[in-house]
Amino acid sequence: MPFTKTQKDVDDWVQQFKISYWKSHAILARLTEETGELAREINHRFGPKQKKSTEDVKDIEDEIGDIIFTLCCLANSLNINLDTGFSRVMDKCYGRDNNRYEKNETVN
Amino acid sequence: MPFTKTQKDVDDWVQQFKISYWKSHAILARLTEETGELAREINHRFGPKQKKSTEDVKDIEDEIGDIIFTLCCLANSLNINLDTGFSRVMDKCYGRDNNRYEKNETVN
Amino acid sequence: MPFTKTQKDVDDWVQQFKISYWKSHAILARLTEETGELAREINHRFGPKQKKSTEDVKDIEDEIGDIIFTLCCLANSLNINLDTGFSRVMDKCYGRDNNRYEKNETVN
Amino acid sequence: MPFTKTQKDVDDWVQQFKISYWKSHAILARLTEETGELAREINHRFGPKQKKSTEDVKDIEDEIGDIIFTLCCLANSLNINLDTGFSRVMDKCYGRDNNRYEKNETVN
Repeated sequence: MPFTKTQKDVDDWVQQFKISYWKSHAILARLTEETGELAREINHRFGPKQKKSTEDVKDIEDEIGDIIFTLCCLANSLNINLDTGFSRVMDKCYGRDNNRYEKNETVN
Repeated sequence: MPFTKTQKDVDDWVQQFKISYWKSHAILARLTEETGELAREINHRFGPKQKKSTEDVKDIEDEIGDIIFTLCCLANSLNINLDTGFSRVMDKCYGRDNNRYEKNETVN
Repeated sequence: MPFTKTQKDVDDWVQQFKISYWKSHAILARLTEETGELAREINHRFGPKQKKSTEDVKDIEDEIGDIIFTLCCLANSLNINLDTGFSRVMDKCYGRDNNRYEKNETVN
Repeated sequence: MPFTKTQKDVDDWVQQFKISYWKSHAILARLTEETGELAREINHRFGPKQKKSTEDVKDIEDEIGDIIFTLCCLANSLNINLDTGFSRVMDKCYGRDNNRYEKNETVN
């Protein structure tokens, strides 16, 4: 259960504080902010004004980390289990979306 | 390493297809779309026109799952390891951000 | 004052209703949703799975219209004048950002 | 035609430069970034950690201005007329959405 530990790590940190989780709309606003920071990094590496090498993706790694942290806060605050959510996505991939694109040929 | 398996699950599905991963800007646009779908669900449950019960968070669970799938695609396409990214976020939490809010009193 | 009329058009419609403007966070969530719909259209026209001709931009036009409507709601709810905001952006363009890119040569 | 002048103002500034408009995906990434900056301001004023007075909305005004500038870039790059887009939104308001909420009583 990969996300159980991740959600627990976030919860351990948050439970130190009196404030607990923010309301859903405030967490969503934070997610929008973090997604915007990822977008800036994408433009800096792959956009019209490349300020950074396309090899250097450390800041993108950090921004994705921030987004996952924010998603864990939202999930924890609503008692959502991300392992359930993610396994339903994979089921959808192998179900409805399994012939979405042209497949590689396989040998057998 | 919780995300190693998650990223592998996504990669196994993608590697079936000839198309492989999209370019970073297209994956980012997809992330923006998925974040928008989460926002719609948040407004439906906690917004001014509640169409759904605040108890029913299954669709929010699904939307977060879709966002994580999209983040895994971005990470895989750029050879980013999400365990590294996430552990750096937790280090920042226990470092720079550890006195960000008022703490609960602890007994000892 | 181009935006005065635009903001007034939105306000005339909203003032018909008892509910008036939503809170800022709910309007922001709506903006996130509308931005996501624009992102989907951009991917449909210019992304890896083009479903629509790059010539056909009518749906993009509509999505931008929806975003502007949402921004007018936010501005009206907070007594913000968009003409002031936009003219400050243009001042910044001709000030701080006026040598941001290489200029075209001009004859004189 | 309120937006004709706005789009022309943006175009006059852009036409100074050799680079002209970015591609749609890069402009969209910029829009995502600007929307994120607006989200941060909303949380600073109306969120759980209010750093700024709810009276002081000047930074929100600026962020909305930046979003409109970015939308004008996207529209100009695709030959989209925002007056057409916005008037179609208002038509939808007075058509499909005109009984969306409970109306104020009117005297006559």
